[in-house]
Amino acid sequence: MNTSAGLPAPTKIDGLPLGRPHDRSSDALILSTTVDLLAERAYERVTMDEVAARTGKAKTTLYRRWATKDDLVIAAIRSAGHPPEIDHLPDRGSLRLDLLAVVDSPWLGGATRRISILRTLISAARSSEELADVVRAEITEPYIEIYRRLFDRAIDSGEIPRELAARVPVLADVLPAMSAHRLSFSREPVERDFFVSVIDDVILAALGHSPR
Amino acid sequence: MNTSAGLPAPTKIDGLPLGRPHDRSSDALILSTTVDLLAERAYERVTMDEVAARTGKAKTTLYRRWATKDDLVIAAIRSAGHPPEIDHLPDRGSLRLDLLAVVDSPWLGGATRRISILRTLISAARSSEELADVVRAEITEPYIEIYRRLFDRAIDSGEIPRELAARVPVLADVLPAMSAHRLSFSREPVERDFFVSVIDDVILAALGHSPR
Repeated sequence: MNTSAGLPAPTKIDGLPLGRPHDRSSDALILSTTVDLLAERAYERVTMDEVAARTGKAKTTLYRRWATKDDLVIAAIRSAGHPPEIDHLPDRGSLRLDLLAVVDSPWLGGATRRISILRTLISAARSSEELADVVRAEITEPYIEIYRRLFDRAIDSGEIPRELAARVPVLADVLPAMSAHRLSFSREPVERDFFVSVIDDVILAALGHSPR
Repeated sequence: MNTSAGLPAPTKIDGLPLGRPHDRSSDALILSTTVDLLAERAYERVTMDEVAARTGKAKTTLYRRWATKDDLVIAAIRSAGHPPEIDHLPDRGSLRLDLLAVVDSPWLGGATRRISILRTLISAARSSEELADVVRAEITEPYIEIYRRLFDRAIDSGEIPRELAARVPVLADVLPAMSAHRLSFSREPVERDFFVSVIDDVILAALGHSPR
């Protein structure tokens, strides 16, 4: 051992300072508080100061674990997990009800809070390529995959005619693309009606459902 | 007059230094060169230095007229005008041919160059709210208006059944939203096939055209 050779005792293991063991419950509180802030305010007003104040942690504690605000936010996105529908595809008896189940998912506190968080993240992704990559990998791509699987299943069950299968890849992009565009280009609040219109007037219409 | 009252002769009029009269043809060259650069390279590599070098102008000349790169780029976007289809709606005999005419427009040098410019502008709009506003007002909103008018005209001519009119507002957003999403989220080149698929598999499909 190095210490037996008269070298100084280690003060770090794997780059972490020795001391109190790393507190995972404290991490969880900090990350969920960060998500709360993303739901409440514009990205420039989501600050390490505010996270420290709300959690009662020292700013040095935060900075020891996450070097920048973007790092903290990336960790918060990852801690929020994927949309749960990727593991449990909704199965409510029709493609329309399944698509509405995704829109009305309780994930991230339900539609209103989730839309607020996504709007903040889309704006934050503008200033950080790394954050944009995490949003794409953790949120956008899982949603595209959920829609693709719902369309494929509706074709397999016969709800959608198999001859429309060629439309599935581009249709799986429609809700993520139109939501992102609305959230980044419009200053108006984005209401549930918007998603319902995209589902009825674009997606189901393109899959041959009768006019609503 | 102030000068007759013994005050110093003016050295500026309306904040512009006196000197050679303002050279409009020089402006046009600088702005079209800026558009060339937007077509060729990522936004961070579009520089005042490069515009000065290519046009043979002094950097001070550029900075006297446009205080920042963003200002120069905003002027370049405005100088490029609106998509010409807003003044002359294509009329090729079917909605599909009219939509393809917009995709294949010669505006900004044709589809390939225009897509490159738009990709650079979408990325630039991330770092400047003012630039984002100009892109929205000069490019995105005119395109939404062009598509809306093409759909309305197809309803008036009977090509699209009038009972589908409720779908027009959201369908007019589809091409701009899906193009912007593809250009900002995907690193792949965006080919004409992508636009054709959005037209056939989403828009015309949602308007009741038979499967391609």
